[in-house]
Amino acid sequence: MNDNAPVTVLGLGAMGTALAGAFLDAGHPVTVWNRTAGRAADLVARGATEAATAAEAVSASPLVVVCLLNDDTVREVLDGAVGSLAGRTVVNLTNGTPRQAREAADRAAGHGVGYVDGGIMAVPPMIGTPGSLVLYSGSPEGFHAHERTLGALGRAMYLGEDAGLAALYDIALLSAMYGMFGGFFHALALTGSEKVPATEFAPLVAPWLTAMMAAFPGMAEAVDSGDHSAAASNLAMQATAYVNLLDASTDQGVSTELVEPMRALLDQGVAAGLGAGDVSSLVDLLRTAPAGTAGA
Amino acid sequence: MNDNAPVTVLGLGAMGTALAGAFLDAGHPVTVWNRTAGRAADLVARGATEAATAAEAVSASPLVVVCLLNDDTVREVLDGAVGSLAGRTVVNLTNGTPRQAREAADRAAGHGVGYVDGGIMAVPPMIGTPGSLVLYSGSPEGFHAHERTLGALGRAMYLGEDAGLAALYDIALLSAMYGMFGGFFHALALTGSEKVPATEFAPLVAPWLTAMMAAFPGMAEAVDSGDHSAAASNLAMQATAYVNLLDASTDQGVSTELVEPMRALLDQGVAAGLGAGDVSSLVDLLRTAPAGTAGA
Ligand SMILES: NC(=O)c1ccc[n+]([C@@H]2O[C@H](COP(=O)([O-])OP(=O)(O)OC[C@H]3O[C@@H](n4cnc5c(N)ncnc54)[C@H](OP(=O)(O)O)[C@@H]3O)[C@@H](O)[C@H]2O)c1
Ligand SMILES: NC(=O)c1ccc[n+]([C@@H]2O[C@H](COP(=O)([O-])OP(=O)(O)OC[C@H]3O[C@@H](n4cnc5c(N)ncnc54)[C@H](OP(=O)(O)O)[C@@H]3O)[C@@H](O)[C@H]2O)c1
Repeated sequence: MNDNAPVTVLGLGAMGTALAGAFLDAGHPVTVWNRTAGRAADLVARGATEAATAAEAVSASPLVVVCLLNDDTVREVLDGAVGSLAGRTVVNLTNGTPRQAREAADRAAGHGVGYVDGGIMAVPPMIGTPGSLVLYSGSPEGFHAHERTLGALGRAMYLGEDAGLAALYDIALLSAMYGMFGGFFHALALTGSEKVPATEFAPLVAPWLTAMMAAFPGMAEAVDSGDHSAAASNLAMQATAYVNLLDASTDQGVSTELVEPMRALLDQGVAAGLGAGDVSSLVDLLRTAPAGTAGA
Repeated sequence: MNDNAPVTVLGLGAMGTALAGAFLDAGHPVTVWNRTAGRAADLVARGATEAATAAEAVSASPLVVVCLLNDDTVREVLDGAVGSLAGRTVVNLTNGTPRQAREAADRAAGHGVGYVDGGIMAVPPMIGTPGSLVLYSGSPEGFHAHERTLGALGRAMYLGEDAGLAALYDIALLSAMYGMFGGFFHALALTGSEKVPATEFAPLVAPWLTAMMAAFPGMAEAVDSGDHSAAASNLAMQATAYVNLLDASTDQGVSTELVEPMRALLDQGVAAGLGAGDVSSLVDLLRTAPAGTAGA
């Protein structure tokens, strides 16, 4: 593929619009389609071609990038364009599960379509900047044929032939993000209870979390080795301090809904005899099936 | 106070030991006490004096830094030393709630003791380094008299005369940290389900979370203004994608206990008509009392 390989983008929500814009910026002929008309106007003004149907859009390019609401939507739209898909590569950047990705890869194979699943680790304004990371897995031929083109979206990381891997990493990274956001929301509710402006408190959060992230590599090593014994902050002490977090929330008129489950997990750790070690031992308590036995 | 003002440290757990070590490193005469004998040996070898009782330790210095397990422990230990406390300043760095801090300040005032409450935003190896932040609130005279000495522990931030504020900020920052850790643990359980080594996946997490922290200032502004309408990633789309996070967890044999409450909160946001805006609107849904009406 050369730098002006044509690209089709299906879906012009906030993200699809950003993707199409980045391909245009990189000099690609871009064909777009969206269920609701009228969302392509800006892109058309920048040189994109708007197709009347998904099938027509698909016919315009060997590479079809899909960014719709969810898996049901993707199926509905691709089913309607299935006659035009053979021989093309579909790169599905819609958020989904590993299972959905694997099933989509199987369906695509049945129609002679190359299937690459992806996870966008960025918000729309980051697309096309060096801070954007897009995870891919699935057809190696499909990915490598279009790797340069996809590079217009940001850093591309190919995780392997199993189409489910990009979704697995994507969902895992989203878990970390929602955990962080939930903690941030709870923190703002707490400080707001004493009329501390959020804009006054919030600047303390990023440096603090950044400092605490220094624990990640050691925790990851402990998870891999199964040895959680080294701890500068022992689990039992943390379980004790965590009670203060709940009591303070109740005192301050803040719901404990987001923070309760960690209390239960810390207490479970103490009950399991893990109190003297590191909290990284809690990862194993989250497994309802032994590590490595689920999925593929 | 000059640079070799004497300091007493009550409690030689992982944190108390680090605090006493930092005071020694800064040249202060340090007297220590711990319930269980034998934990002072290294500090004594570095020049500290071990007292036989908490009361004896308190008598040795105008500044008494307390770092014990929790509020009950602090009360027990200080009650036993109350005859020696008058005229001294107690800086209590034990984790606790705003209410506990305010009650401790009241009790201290009754005994003619200056009371400063604090929150240590660091793990023990960080104490005495520039990365360590210690929050203080309570007696302004007590804090300012010992500000230079306390500077040996790391950056000192004084939040005001209300003794509860340091605990409020501390607990809020801990909420953010436990949210992040919970998300990280869930992520490692997910990737581990497909035998991805934690040490292979974990390096992706910190850059990703760092990128997503860029949303904090805008979210804080939205919380202060009450205007959550601007959103590059709308709440309804996130509520839809969040279902994938839960489905993938179940598919992969990972407990959904840590991630369920955010689903409920996102769904509550959609039901409340907040779907088109930013997820920062969820902060208000966590308040069980109107902002600013709880506490002091
Ligand atoms: N925004 C982000 O920060 C972000 C980040 C990473 C990943 N993602 C993922 O990217 C995907 C799109 O997100 P977005 O932010 O662009 O969402 P969005 O702004 O809400 O757009 C949703 C898109 O899906 C289309 N759609 C919904 N139902 C449809 C149906 N039944 N048939 C055909 N099209 C349908 C919409 O078309 P209409 O215009 O006709 O409604 C629109 O194009 C999602 O999977 C999301 O998880 C988003
Ligand atoms: N470690 C951290 O990362 C960290 C970070 C910030 C804040 N903190 C806070 O610092 C405080 C101490 O934490 P840590 O890590 O040092 O905990 P730790 O290593 O578990 O030490 C607990 C300390 O409390 C003492 N203690 C417990 N029960 C007692 C009682 N009934 N009477 C007298 N002393 C008692 C222990 O004495 P014995 O030796 O006799 O058991 C020991 O000195 C906690 O409030 C914690 O939340 C810790």
